[in-house]
Amino acid sequence: VARTQVRGRLIIIGGHEAKDAEGDRTILELVAARAKRRKGDLLLIPVATLDPEHALREYQEVFHELGVNQILQLDVRSRDDASTREAVSLVKRASVIFFTGGDQLRITSQIGDSPVFQALQKRYRQGATVVGTSAGAAAMPETMLISGAGDQSHSVSTLGMAPGLGLIDGVVIDSHFAERGRLGRLLGAVAENPRNIGIGIDEDTAIVVEAGSRFSVQGSGAVYIVDGATVHYSSLTEQEADGVISIFGVRLHVLGAGDSFDLTKRQPLPTPNARQAAA
Amino acid sequence: VARTQVRGRLIIIGGHEAKDAEGDRTILELVAARAKRRKGDLLLIPVATLDPEHALREYQEVFHELGVNQILQLDVRSRDDASTREAVSLVKRASVIFFTGGDQLRITSQIGDSPVFQALQKRYRQGATVVGTSAGAAAMPETMLISGAGDQSHSVSTLGMAPGLGLIDGVVIDSHFAERGRLGRLLGAVAENPRNIGIGIDEDTAIVVEAGSRFSVQGSGAVYIVDGATVHYSSLTEQEADGVISIFGVRLHVLGAGDSFDLTKRQPLPTPNARQAAA
Repeated sequence: VARTQVRGRLIIIGGHEAKDAEGDRTILELVAARAKRRKGDLLLIPVATLDPEHALREYQEVFHELGVNQILQLDVRSRDDASTREAVSLVKRASVIFFTGGDQLRITSQIGDSPVFQALQKRYRQGATVVGTSAGAAAMPETMLISGAGDQSHSVSTLGMAPGLGLIDGVVIDSHFAERGRLGRLLGAVAENPRNIGIGIDEDTAIVVEAGSRFSVQGSGAVYIVDGATVHYSSLTEQEADGVISIFGVRLHVLGAGDSFDLTKRQPLPTPNARQAAA
Repeated sequence: VARTQVRGRLIIIGGHEAKDAEGDRTILELVAARAKRRKGDLLLIPVATLDPEHALREYQEVFHELGVNQILQLDVRSRDDASTREAVSLVKRASVIFFTGGDQLRITSQIGDSPVFQALQKRYRQGATVVGTSAGAAAMPETMLISGAGDQSHSVSTLGMAPGLGLIDGVVIDSHFAERGRLGRLLGAVAENPRNIGIGIDEDTAIVVEAGSRFSVQGSGAVYIVDGATVHYSSLTEQEADGVISIFGVRLHVLGAGDSFDLTKRQPLPTPNARQAAA
């Protein structure tokens, strides 16, 4: 999806967004607000999980509490389910499309290039919001991280990548970032091709991407940007696939709620309030 | 300790260095080689742990297997134990002094500025090797990290620092780095004062510091360098101690075995072999 063609937005969540009515549900309130503002339908697609009933119950309850009246669901268990006329018409009606968590390879293998995905891509270009949490977040870019232990420094052999949905260019996204100590695998992914900016999103934290070129941060955690454009040495080779990958000169930014990032210029911007306070 | 005065070296280990005779004990072999080469005594100081007998048994066995004949021990359970003439003479005889793991505050509170520490500092200046693993590693710099959850992004309120032994200037050291996902707390420590270079050491991995100004990496994991000198924005304030700390423009290097780092120039250097291969 070329950036200039896009009128929609992406809400990409690091997983475990707060759902409890007693607490601060910033992220899901943001999603609900999009659905209510556009007076359209919110479509839940629990394709990533093997227990879609559970995911549907959980999100239907929360979004109902948050005042969303039209909640639809698309239960895709095979590629055939992603090709029916009914499925495509559900996507065409939706103004917010929500991918829940689970296994990102289930999302791409069942939906990738299907009539449902083509309809979704068109809706996104026209202005719909596409939301993904956890596996739904990882699946957004052209290339997605699928494996790599979170508790060790990375070698080429332990890092798994696969083609993603392609809704956003030039980035690789990891979720549950601080919680599962995933710096090593995100650095490995960026070392493989520094063209991609690595984005690590903490739990209960989201990036809201506008027109595919800029995002702002919301929620209680942080977003880590790993920019390999300045890397001046990397030891990555197929031959020594088991060794630690040395990488010198990575640029790293940590963004909190309200901060934003320009993907084209590769530049972070602090919250407007913080800028005033500093001035 | 001013760098120019130092003739000794530090071996700073990220914890859980391999001890099994069946495996690759690179790190402890390095320590043993220092002791054998200098024909001096290896002195174990298990002051960080509440179970010094266990630590002593474990290391005595390994170093015996590795051919070190003169293994001494200094069991410090109070500041009085760190002031006796016997304790000081043990340190004076040692050519390698080894701080085992546990709680870094026990090391500094029991030994800091004691006659034992003064003797140790003198031995280090003269050429002795001081080794620390885990808590023993964290205690080496002038300022040490003592707390901060490894599974969340950092706020000022969750980060604990305390004065360390002061054997190395201008750095903050964290151990068990990838294994416990400690990027957040090391970034927090560097944000508090970018003068300090953050050094995160994986388990079974060590840095060998020469003359306090340059180190090389050994072992199976990676060493992460967090350099805050290039930071152009940081949101850190005492007022908002619970919020995530935003930090833009950190320089990050990942070093593997054989790579080295110049602390004065703040520059990494790849292994000599890798440089040849790249040329």
